[in-house]
Amino acid sequence: MRASNWNCGNDRLRPFREAESGMTGIPETVDAFHRGRFHLIQPLGQGHRSGMDAMLVASLVSCRGACRVADLGAGAGAAGMAVASRIEEAEVLLVERSPVMADFARRSLALPENAHLADRVSVLEADVSLSGKARAAAGLPDDTFDHVIMNPPFNDAADRRTPDRLKAEAHAMSGDLFEAWIKTAGAIMKPGGQLSLIARPESIAGIIGACGRRFGGLEITPLLPRAGENAVRILVSAIKQSRKRLALRAPLVMHGEGHRFSPEVDDLNNGRAAYHRR
Amino acid sequence: MRASNWNCGNDRLRPFREAESGMTGIPETVDAFHRGRFHLIQPLGQGHRSGMDAMLVASLVSCRGACRVADLGAGAGAAGMAVASRIEEAEVLLVERSPVMADFARRSLALPENAHLADRVSVLEADVSLSGKARAAAGLPDDTFDHVIMNPPFNDAADRRTPDRLKAEAHAMSGDLFEAWIKTAGAIMKPGGQLSLIARPESIAGIIGACGRRFGGLEITPLLPRAGENAVRILVSAIKQSRKRLALRAPLVMHGEGHRFSPEVDDLNNGRAAYHRR
Repeated sequence: MRASNWNCGNDRLRPFREAESGMTGIPETVDAFHRGRFHLIQPLGQGHRSGMDAMLVASLVSCRGACRVADLGAGAGAAGMAVASRIEEAEVLLVERSPVMADFARRSLALPENAHLADRVSVLEADVSLSGKARAAAGLPDDTFDHVIMNPPFNDAADRRTPDRLKAEAHAMSGDLFEAWIKTAGAIMKPGGQLSLIARPESIAGIIGACGRRFGGLEITPLLPRAGENAVRILVSAIKQSRKRLALRAPLVMHGEGHRFSPEVDDLNNGRAAYHRR
Repeated sequence: MRASNWNCGNDRLRPFREAESGMTGIPETVDAFHRGRFHLIQPLGQGHRSGMDAMLVASLVSCRGACRVADLGAGAGAAGMAVASRIEEAEVLLVERSPVMADFARRSLALPENAHLADRVSVLEADVSLSGKARAAAGLPDDTFDHVIMNPPFNDAADRRTPDRLKAEAHAMSGDLFEAWIKTAGAIMKPGGQLSLIARPESIAGIIGACGRRFGGLEITPLLPRAGENAVRILVSAIKQSRKRLALRAPLVMHGEGHRFSPEVDDLNNGRAAYHRR
């Protein structure tokens, strides 16, 4: 997971498989998600490793019938593949700037365990912060997607002390980048389309600001590790061109008594349920 | 109360006394707060009437020993008087632009029921949005207060359809006014002083933006009418010149089963407890 205080994810689980090295020469693991319904090849010891955050942002997507979904800054593809895993009609584009991470995503899709998803998920190597004609030329045309999801790099500049270049890239989300990513999301989705993201609580004002007049009907849900504790994440969804007011929803509480996830959160984490808008 | 969907306050209670008319010629009530420990003369049928919001913002103040508190946009003085009622060492300045509302505050302080507060609470007729020398000349010098509280007018311009001028004034809080009020709060409080306010959830980004670099350590608590429901208010506190990160706290839930307040909220509403920072 991305933050040290966020220990609810898959990091503590033993990887499904561990390899000496992949084609990239980087040590890697193969991790099971959705209780084994899909698998992800991820770099080990460097780069960003996915877990709970990606599963939760994927849970924000719900659609009836066919829908097109873009996962911006997809990394190895965890969130986008989680959407494809839960929603059989979803067609998912994983957008990732890093050739190394995009390669992990492509190789994940080539795993036999993911054969049931592979023809509905594709990888686009492109910089999410492109705009205008350059963005369309890179493969991200306007008004195309029903859903755009993002699990954007969390750490602000003050946190950037990692010597790991791959991880540093994934963590280097500044205020301007937020603005650029949400602008791209607004451009490439259809009117009425839904933006979904997960972020740290301290990003809340920047996210609302970046949504600006592009989006309305923001729904923000705090995620608490346990009842009574401060939020460690916020889940945000918003509708393109909606004029509906922001709603601050009741929190999701990850754990009840003991270490187990609450049943609701376990369902979201394992692709058994969507977290529906109100 | 200020919003129609917020029915937890004192509005539903029968007023302690009701008068045909006051010195201002406006029908009025005398309402009991903190289970009768102080009373407030308020206009009836027009102007802003105080209740739960004022009591909750007052609950954010805690101090050991003597402290100076400014209540910006105090109206009839509910929040500031609630602080003085709970904290015996607190010296409170009620700052209100409207001569009519300031008169209600002065007359409230003259009530025999409030004799125990009257020498620690005073009224300043001044416009909170003044700045620089004009603000100091109006009686609001820099670096003076340990706490600044505000229960700012909630409704945005789109809501302003009331024909009631007094109420319209209290409700006419635009984005710029937020900025101006929080700037004043930052100027008149001591370094390390605390700003406390209550607002609607949709104001969250504007408040964080207005706090900017003036304040840090923002703590934001959603208020839910019942468990699982959306927030109807946020409580916000912030420390002048702190660099601490924003915290999104677990919500306060107003009601358990039935109509009664939860014990925690009842204590805050009745001045038996402070809502402490973490």
